[in-house]
Amino acid sequence: MKALVYHGDHNIALEEKAKPVIEKTTDAIVKVVKTTICGTDSGIYKGKNPYMRDGITLGHEGVGIIEEVGDSVSQFKVGDKVIISCITSCGSCEYCKKQLYSHCKDGGWILGHMIDGVQAEYVRIPHADNSLYKIPDSIDDEVAVMISDILPTGHEIGVQYGEVKPGDAIAIVGAGPIGISVLLTAQFYSPAIIVVIDLDENRLEMAKQLGATHTLKPSDNLQEELAEIVGEEGVDVAIEAVGIPQTWDVCQKIVKPGGNIANVGVHGKKVDFEIQDLWIKNLTITTGLVNTNTIPMLMKAVSTNKLPVNKLITHHFKLSEMEKAYEVFLNASKEKAMKLIIDVD
Amino acid sequence: MKALVYHGDHNIALEEKAKPVIEKTTDAIVKVVKTTICGTDSGIYKGKNPYMRDGITLGHEGVGIIEEVGDSVSQFKVGDKVIISCITSCGSCEYCKKQLYSHCKDGGWILGHMIDGVQAEYVRIPHADNSLYKIPDSIDDEVAVMISDILPTGHEIGVQYGEVKPGDAIAIVGAGPIGISVLLTAQFYSPAIIVVIDLDENRLEMAKQLGATHTLKPSDNLQEELAEIVGEEGVDVAIEAVGIPQTWDVCQKIVKPGGNIANVGVHGKKVDFEIQDLWIKNLTITTGLVNTNTIPMLMKAVSTNKLPVNKLITHHFKLSEMEKAYEVFLNASKEKAMKLIIDVD
Repeated sequence: MKALVYHGDHNIALEEKAKPVIEKTTDAIVKVVKTTICGTDSGIYKGKNPYMRDGITLGHEGVGIIEEVGDSVSQFKVGDKVIISCITSCGSCEYCKKQLYSHCKDGGWILGHMIDGVQAEYVRIPHADNSLYKIPDSIDDEVAVMISDILPTGHEIGVQYGEVKPGDAIAIVGAGPIGISVLLTAQFYSPAIIVVIDLDENRLEMAKQLGATHTLKPSDNLQEELAEIVGEEGVDVAIEAVGIPQTWDVCQKIVKPGGNIANVGVHGKKVDFEIQDLWIKNLTITTGLVNTNTIPMLMKAVSTNKLPVNKLITHHFKLSEMEKAYEVFLNASKEKAMKLIIDVD
Repeated sequence: MKALVYHGDHNIALEEKAKPVIEKTTDAIVKVVKTTICGTDSGIYKGKNPYMRDGITLGHEGVGIIEEVGDSVSQFKVGDKVIISCITSCGSCEYCKKQLYSHCKDGGWILGHMIDGVQAEYVRIPHADNSLYKIPDSIDDEVAVMISDILPTGHEIGVQYGEVKPGDAIAIVGAGPIGISVLLTAQFYSPAIIVVIDLDENRLEMAKQLGATHTLKPSDNLQEELAEIVGEEGVDVAIEAVGIPQTWDVCQKIVKPGGNIANVGVHGKKVDFEIQDLWIKNLTITTGLVNTNTIPMLMKAVSTNKLPVNKLITHHFKLSEMEKAYEVFLNASKEKAMKLIIDVD
């Protein structure tokens, strides 16, 4: 089969690889129908995860059809169409029993990271019963791909951890696919003001179309400009959706007393925490990798057209064009790219 | 009357001052019976709050008797014995209506900070109805002084914000009066393991007597020593009760995935936040100034002898010995001092 394989820093290739086989009775083999590229994948490409093994197939988002199941798999049968969760979970360990699937002792984020991932014709999914979700006919395949990772990440780590409430003034710092996922799912909870902050005009325009009440570009006057919208004390919730010191810094400057900072971004270095000013502010700061425990809820929201998720999809490629797809995604701003759909058929 | 007055960095004096008078109809004048010195007061003495006005009477903890009330005060009458909350709250502003009294728009921490405080024979208390608490006969005056600030601070900002739960393994970093208040009130919620970490043998000994299941001294092997007690992944809740970069750093190193860091310490400079390791750990980090909204609950706990709070009291002085009392408190470790009671009579 064809697979997009990691060979170290700035070295990936679409190549021929053996089709995966059932290794444990809880595994399923899934024939991939559609997949996509995540910001984390481009991070791996750029060398952010040097501990990764040479030869790993990348990718942790996708939709497919069950090709084969291990003897213990009870929830799925051959031919079922499924969403592949970016998080693999055994369902039985200490962390899974707290719905902290991201820290599953025999799973977590392993696809395209510790074991072969989804950017291939076939993928082996461990703990299939807890790590796959059957797709109803009412959900389009391409929309379903957005439910593997980005929608639950925005919803759980941005909106739920940030405790977005009706009437709140919130700021989303970063309008990439994750920022936009936060924007879409924040609207479940009816905040009064949603300010989206980004450098990219095109992304701010998309944010406006998808529900941002205001957009701002970062500048030296950001706090003053924001104060005109939400008042001098700042926002109830600041959501970091990039993963760099500058965007963290914006968040810690704009949150009001009693407010929340929800960090969603994947960071590569430490940041300054201005605790000499913030110890007194009664803040709640959260971090996290998605648990995907809200996938069933998001599937319901998507199937009743509550979320215009398809708007996130800007480009289409075939698996044979995978290397070109990475090139486009790595130049997302210039290419006006958000999420790419890779057709594996 | 006599009052302990701040005159800038390292300059305080017990001196004669005019007795306070009712300024607003919501004020009460309280004749102070007992007061104490807080770590924050010694911070002021050391120059941590350079914006403070010369001439302010220090102190924000104490017990007294109502001497006079303004026309609008409805909950108290002359002769009532009261706990003075360290936080003044109007009860009506946006923040008070969320029980975030620490950020009251006409109050917060103002006593001994923005207006004259409690280390005096008399003190004016604004918004008396919301900022004083009647003491039942069942609570000893000296114990009541501990309810002005340190017990609710430990309980609300350490234990409640840290979400201490039955069965949890928790670590308290710092065993001063605030750390010990965390230790005492954490036991309401039945954690299984309470590790107290401090450099001071005497304080660790007190922690052991007051409920710590384990004590540790900080060292290069701290994580290994802690792992032997709680397992390699760390503690459910790490509570910072000092306010320096080193103790923050211990907290961010010892908390397990899905855990909480509750910062109680008052910090004077920024800290490094190792978000490149912690973004993935699904942490909740909280900061805060006490709201004192649990004072009524703590009074009930204390009056039924649920908390051996008197153990915190190590020294007694008269108001006339106030300067000597500061000297002892500033050398707390050498003097084996925790909380000092100042008798104003």
